[in-house]
Amino acid sequence: MSSPVPSPLTPEVFPELPPIAGVTLAVGQCGIRYQDRTDLMVAVLEPGTTVGGVFTRSLTASAPVEWCRRALDGGRARAVVVNSGNSNAFTGRQGEITVAATVDAVAERLGCAREEVFVASTGVIGQPMPPSIIPDHLATVLAGLDAGAWSEAARAIMTTDTFPKMATRQAMIGDTPVTLNGFAKGSGMIAPDMATMLAFIFTDAAIESAALKQLIAESNQRSFNCITVDGDTSTSDTVLLFATGKAGNKPVANANARRFEDFRRALDELMLELAQLIVRDGEGAGKFVTITVTGADGRKAARRVAFAIANSPLVKTAIAGEDANWGRIVMAVGKAGERADRDRLMIFIGGIQVTAAGAAVPGYDEAPVAAHMKGREIEIRVDLGVGQGEATVWTCDLTHGYIDINGSYRS
Amino acid sequence: MSSPVPSPLTPEVFPELPPIAGVTLAVGQCGIRYQDRTDLMVAVLEPGTTVGGVFTRSLTASAPVEWCRRALDGGRARAVVVNSGNSNAFTGRQGEITVAATVDAVAERLGCAREEVFVASTGVIGQPMPPSIIPDHLATVLAGLDAGAWSEAARAIMTTDTFPKMATRQAMIGDTPVTLNGFAKGSGMIAPDMATMLAFIFTDAAIESAALKQLIAESNQRSFNCITVDGDTSTSDTVLLFATGKAGNKPVANANARRFEDFRRALDELMLELAQLIVRDGEGAGKFVTITVTGADGRKAARRVAFAIANSPLVKTAIAGEDANWGRIVMAVGKAGERADRDRLMIFIGGIQVTAAGAAVPGYDEAPVAAHMKGREIEIRVDLGVGQGEATVWTCDLTHGYIDINGSYRS
Repeated sequence: MSSPVPSPLTPEVFPELPPIAGVTLAVGQCGIRYQDRTDLMVAVLEPGTTVGGVFTRSLTASAPVEWCRRALDGGRARAVVVNSGNSNAFTGRQGEITVAATVDAVAERLGCAREEVFVASTGVIGQPMPPSIIPDHLATVLAGLDAGAWSEAARAIMTTDTFPKMATRQAMIGDTPVTLNGFAKGSGMIAPDMATMLAFIFTDAAIESAALKQLIAESNQRSFNCITVDGDTSTSDTVLLFATGKAGNKPVANANARRFEDFRRALDELMLELAQLIVRDGEGAGKFVTITVTGADGRKAARRVAFAIANSPLVKTAIAGEDANWGRIVMAVGKAGERADRDRLMIFIGGIQVTAAGAAVPGYDEAPVAAHMKGREIEIRVDLGVGQGEATVWTCDLTHGYIDINGSYRS
Repeated sequence: MSSPVPSPLTPEVFPELPPIAGVTLAVGQCGIRYQDRTDLMVAVLEPGTTVGGVFTRSLTASAPVEWCRRALDGGRARAVVVNSGNSNAFTGRQGEITVAATVDAVAERLGCAREEVFVASTGVIGQPMPPSIIPDHLATVLAGLDAGAWSEAARAIMTTDTFPKMATRQAMIGDTPVTLNGFAKGSGMIAPDMATMLAFIFTDAAIESAALKQLIAESNQRSFNCITVDGDTSTSDTVLLFATGKAGNKPVANANARRFEDFRRALDELMLELAQLIVRDGEGAGKFVTITVTGADGRKAARRVAFAIANSPLVKTAIAGEDANWGRIVMAVGKAGERADRDRLMIFIGGIQVTAAGAAVPGYDEAPVAAHMKGREIEIRVDLGVGQGEATVWTCDLTHGYIDINGSYRS
């Protein structure tokens, strides 16, 4: 079911994630959908762990997302349980029963409150998932808890991903060094029936849950909310940030505190790295595309124009074809509906200016632009010439691979 | 450059368009981009012809569109001149000079006002078009004017279209029979660098220009504004409606007049037929898809949800793969951002109910749905269960053909 061919944009080296005090992980095989591979990941967190999170804005969100939204009110976490192979989305009342059965079983084993157990599911939409399937495997899985099982955890949550996505950072909070680890999955809204972008981030810093919630919402705006593979939105998107407090720093209550600046920088970097890894594993991706819009009528307008370019099938197929087809960028700017001035619009491809004064630059030489289009990393910059708003988003090209993965029969 | 393989959705029979009193047409070969085919179409209209039109909402509209918008204020037309192969879009000041040269040459030959000459161009974006190219061929082309050259006209304006798009209707205004003919081109936002949906409609009815403008705006909402191939918007979209008045009916001043009802019906039918022909010739299209949304919170909400489904790459690739993947329809409904109730949402594919109460219908049998997916005509209906709003839109699937056409090198 999952794509056997690794993305050509797979990183050459994967980071080795260090232990995080207060976090142990384990994986298991439940046979939910996949055979001969892990499909369950459990992270157990020591008492005192705080949590923040952001979720899909889909109005048809999955049962696990609805549970997490409620559980997040408590701000405390003792475990996160994630399965691949079935998203438990659009499964009606049955879906809620399955979530409750998993949450109950984990809470009982750990002796914690139900609201301290977070769940996420990724895979087929609309197929009921037996309530007993995770509880039945729980004892075996928990027996294998290990502080070093990061890579195994990142692999267990994959669906059509072709490589595991991990990142780590260090930061200082005052005089205290802290560590952040994260892993993610996602590769489009994902092949046959598979949905979802999931990311789980863990730190040993002590941070109050209100600050965590603000932090993750802000960093998410600068990372996962700046990427697109196909413009489709999963019913299960989930990003959770857990802070065990074991590093011993004075607990952070104010996300904007000056002494917290280095941590915010580290979290931003880590989340952006994970987000970009998802694009690099985008379904069928052959090229990693950075789109920057400047000179817009505010940041929101810049984002809207950038996404109009990033989601345009015509732009994305031109990039796949290594065609320096800037006319399609003009088209995408025009359809975005934000203020632009045809005669001040400037387009740069690979740093080379292509248009000026409402037309191609005088004596436009396509050769260096065409050479840039042959690379794996494509850079497009558009200056709208009407204001100061800026935004950068990341996407991949639209290739035959995308159609292969998403257009194949399910059975 | 144009796709040699006819769409599998090509109509089996093309209509024969009758003459329209007051309209003569001619075509020519200017070698603008294509060799060995026509690329210029001129329709000459007798004095007294009125005109209405609608244009792209793109903020980077082409020079011909900008000219037509201004010329439309006069409400009178003596000619429409259309070339294929170059869209004269994003060509800066040079583009305006080229339009002016064409308009001047035609106005001089016909002895009419410049504002009575309408122009449209379709083809490559961003390549200057020599001002003399159409004027130089005008005398030769006008010598061939003919009341019966409808099919030739429809072919001359094609770019990557694989078949010409024509429709005709009869209607009564009071006791007077009138005729409507139309032809169109478009097939996506169109292959390498080609842009645009164009449609030209002619009638011998006598209709004042204010009424024509209202009429075409309204019919456009129910036809060309209800189709999508790839969600991309051309810089050149143009729909023009010309009324010669030669049928002899009492001129219509009020578009809402009761005696005008049959004409409105005929225009709606004709424009919808042309719009659907564009979808049937959508780039790479293998299936014609009708998407109806009911039970929405108003008509606008219904349209937004219907387009979220119609433009979703995941829905479109599933249809291409003949996969009854209703989970992706749930996803698209969820991302549309309009009010929906997961537990009241009903999805029907080929008339067969697939979901109820937030899950698959009990005992769901995929076999008849899978059989429907193998056909050329796919029907999807979604009831949101929250209101009375309804809308229908039309699209095609997303196939390898689309990538082939749009991802190939330009040269």
